[in-house]
Amino acid sequence: MKAPRRRKRQLVAFQGERGAFSEEAARKLLGASIEVLPCQRFEDVFRALDRKKVHSAVIPIENTLHGSVHENYDHLLHFDLPIVGETNVRIIHNLIAPPGVTFAKVRRVFSHPVALNQCLDFFSGHTQLEKVPFYDTAGSVKMVMEEGLKDAAAIASTVAADLYGGRILRRSIEDDRQNFTRFFALRRPEDVRRTPVKARRGSQWKTTLVFSTRNVPGALFRSLSAFALRDLNLMRIESRPLRGKPWEYLFYLDFVGHVNEAACRNALGHLRELADMLRVLGCYPRGD
Amino acid sequence: MKAPRRRKRQLVAFQGERGAFSEEAARKLLGASIEVLPCQRFEDVFRALDRKKVHSAVIPIENTLHGSVHENYDHLLHFDLPIVGETNVRIIHNLIAPPGVTFAKVRRVFSHPVALNQCLDFFSGHTQLEKVPFYDTAGSVKMVMEEGLKDAAAIASTVAADLYGGRILRRSIEDDRQNFTRFFALRRPEDVRRTPVKARRGSQWKTTLVFSTRNVPGALFRSLSAFALRDLNLMRIESRPLRGKPWEYLFYLDFVGHVNEAACRNALGHLRELADMLRVLGCYPRGD
Repeated sequence: MKAPRRRKRQLVAFQGERGAFSEEAARKLLGASIEVLPCQRFEDVFRALDRKKVHSAVIPIENTLHGSVHENYDHLLHFDLPIVGETNVRIIHNLIAPPGVTFAKVRRVFSHPVALNQCLDFFSGHTQLEKVPFYDTAGSVKMVMEEGLKDAAAIASTVAADLYGGRILRRSIEDDRQNFTRFFALRRPEDVRRTPVKARRGSQWKTTLVFSTRNVPGALFRSLSAFALRDLNLMRIESRPLRGKPWEYLFYLDFVGHVNEAACRNALGHLRELADMLRVLGCYPRGD
Repeated sequence: MKAPRRRKRQLVAFQGERGAFSEEAARKLLGASIEVLPCQRFEDVFRALDRKKVHSAVIPIENTLHGSVHENYDHLLHFDLPIVGETNVRIIHNLIAPPGVTFAKVRRVFSHPVALNQCLDFFSGHTQLEKVPFYDTAGSVKMVMEEGLKDAAAIASTVAADLYGGRILRRSIEDDRQNFTRFFALRRPEDVRRTPVKARRGSQWKTTLVFSTRNVPGALFRSLSAFALRDLNLMRIESRPLRGKPWEYLFYLDFVGHVNEAACRNALGHLRELADMLRVLGCYPRGD
């Protein structure tokens, strides 16, 4: 990972191989012309941004079938890298093979175990196909292409098929069409101060924060009242264990509103009275 | 997995090898004299109980460092196997080797990746030791004993050391002493109706339930008011995605009280007015 020199194009870190769903999210959030830095682990993505090796980072935060990506909630707390945007990507799985490999020739199908498990109806309709777990969806396309396997295919996005020159043999083979992943774009705090986040005219804002309460009966209810009493719409609550205090929790909240609006400012002031710890993790235009 | 014949001793399913922390929890919850059925996956544990292959099951539900075991929250919803007890087990990691292998001889240390990662201070103080990931903590003791390795040790519980005849070379090598796992005991609904759960005199009760709300502003706040307005102490809230309805959630709640007490009955009635779905997953004596 080399530090970027003077570039015209924005460099963006994400986890996974080129062609991963995170790259699709990054282009949706930050433009088609970005340059990308694929990283092995989520922690590497946060660190690359923190150490100024990239301009932005894009991370998945929740999936409609699997739930939260808890590791990234923990990283949002430990790093100081504000959320500046969100987007949702529909997860569509395709069967992809090297040119010349027809569907009749395929015997082995490589992909990430989660992707293989999201295409079980497809596999039970084609019992000649063996599922082979691989570390990454896009990486499995890269591998079947590079190795020139004659009896193998991979399951990944259309972006990965295009990128590595694979042919799509079957489109959208996932069991459940309600499969979406929500992604955050992150920047460094000084960059956000210098160039504040802008939203399109008429679009809503969302704010994400994390807080902990004193361990007393009704504490969470009173904390949520700071929002409910001001008609602020809570979109999501996520709890994580508080390290060093067994059976106490951190709560992550998303609500609709901008921290500069009076109702939100007052809600945050009210919550600050009740909370042991409170930090705003970001204020960003609501995704589609 | 054979169906039990007439036994005097209770048969209990858990996930992992003999000597796992789940077995420790099972004996704490159901007595030292139980017989155990180790299973490979959590789903196998639920299925063994559902299909009457065992009398009870014991599952981990949350850890104070890692958070919830989400898979088991999902299984609690899909199976109808009520929670009848809870307990907390302090996770203590020990370095265990075959008799004759001294600490000076150890070069490789086998264990589950989570256990290896919870002993990083120990490893940075002993750089001659190589961490080798293995599928199970107790299983790593079994393996170093069976293979008779001369340069290897495992990280696991004292129970695993006793069971497989390993010697403890270093006790309690975990970085963070605030490492506890909470476990649930489960039974079949007809068995709970026939023999209701009893508590020791003076002990408190807890109730766990799952609900979903209509997707309207303030829905979660109003749901929690059913408990707060009756001074019922909420111990925990956990959210999981609602399948088929992107960006809607199921909420799991634990509160102190018995479903037969007036305040709890009223709270459940109140919540039923507000919720789309509500199910009590169990009512059980509060663990230590």
